[in-house]
Amino acid sequence: MAIKEGIRTGGRSARVQQSIHTAIRDLLLEHDRSMLSVPLIAARAGVTPSTIYRRWGDLTTLLADAAVERLRPDIPVNCGNLREDLQTWTEQYLDEMSSAPGRELMRDVVASSAATCSGKCSAIARDQLQIIIERALARGETAPPAEELMDAIVAPMVYRILYAEAPPSLERMHQLIDICLARQD
Amino acid sequence: MAIKEGIRTGGRSARVQQSIHTAIRDLLLEHDRSMLSVPLIAARAGVTPSTIYRRWGDLTTLLADAAVERLRPDIPVNCGNLREDLQTWTEQYLDEMSSAPGRELMRDVVASSAATCSGKCSAIARDQLQIIIERALARGETAPPAEELMDAIVAPMVYRILYAEAPPSLERMHQLIDICLARQD
Repeated sequence: MAIKEGIRTGGRSARVQQSIHTAIRDLLLEHDRSMLSVPLIAARAGVTPSTIYRRWGDLTTLLADAAVERLRPDIPVNCGNLREDLQTWTEQYLDEMSSAPGRELMRDVVASSAATCSGKCSAIARDQLQIIIERALARGETAPPAEELMDAIVAPMVYRILYAEAPPSLERMHQLIDICLARQD
Repeated sequence: MAIKEGIRTGGRSARVQQSIHTAIRDLLLEHDRSMLSVPLIAARAGVTPSTIYRRWGDLTTLLADAAVERLRPDIPVNCGNLREDLQTWTEQYLDEMSSAPGRELMRDVVASSAATCSGKCSAIARDQLQIIIERALARGETAPPAEELMDAIVAPMVYRILYAEAPPSLERMHQLIDICLARQD
């Protein structure tokens, strides 16, 4: 089910959405994810269950949307050069995504049939990489396009977290960054 | 829940497992996936629901296991050289995985918390690539290790199917193969 667009109009609606996301985050600290229900989340957020059903349709879509919101990260750290910027960003992303809540979050996004959630999820990573790339170009460095970095760095990291026996080592991630940057030289 | 090991002993047990997998495949041709239940699958396979619960624990794990079995492909086509072998294999994998049943299958595997399912899923792709690599080496060609091919080709393909706005084009997949092989030259 697609998240209903056009309701996110700021003001009261944005505050309601924020209180529901906060309720989910707090409940996940106290309970196993399988214990969460729409009535429980509504009670904690101080809204009626029908507010949630109207906006998100069902629990899976609500959890996926909350997961994507939690993905939204800060401005990437500026280390003064492209390689270190990418290493630092990758290290944080790997830390977050290979944690138990990170895996659950990625599963929620995949499990939701709302294509907007999955699209948003990769768009957030791409936007972050674009900031790093533009900073590098402004310094006079060369940099690969964001799509290349998505395929060369983000995809193997996420694929291995979801499907391989173990997440990739930080050393392997540094190798993948080196391989990708070497193609630009 | 982990799939219970040690029960897959061949003979009667293997036949029961096969009849259950066949029942799931047939039911998926007739019904939407959300309509499947353990009693329905058991009835079609001619076993009792408790046979299924004992072996798989729950519906999610059963569907994930069946999904992995359906992933198990034939011997990769032999085109006589590494590049074309990889192109042909990638084309088939992209076709299967970006279809609606392919996406559902990958979602089932990710949604199951049985780590063995996810591990099996990437092991199947890696085994296929290993066959292609060994054939290339036997011809006297050079070939990257299977892990490199997983990161450079399989990971971007699966990541984009699951998370991007659209699956990768075949042209992009050919590019990724070229980039990976160029590093070996």
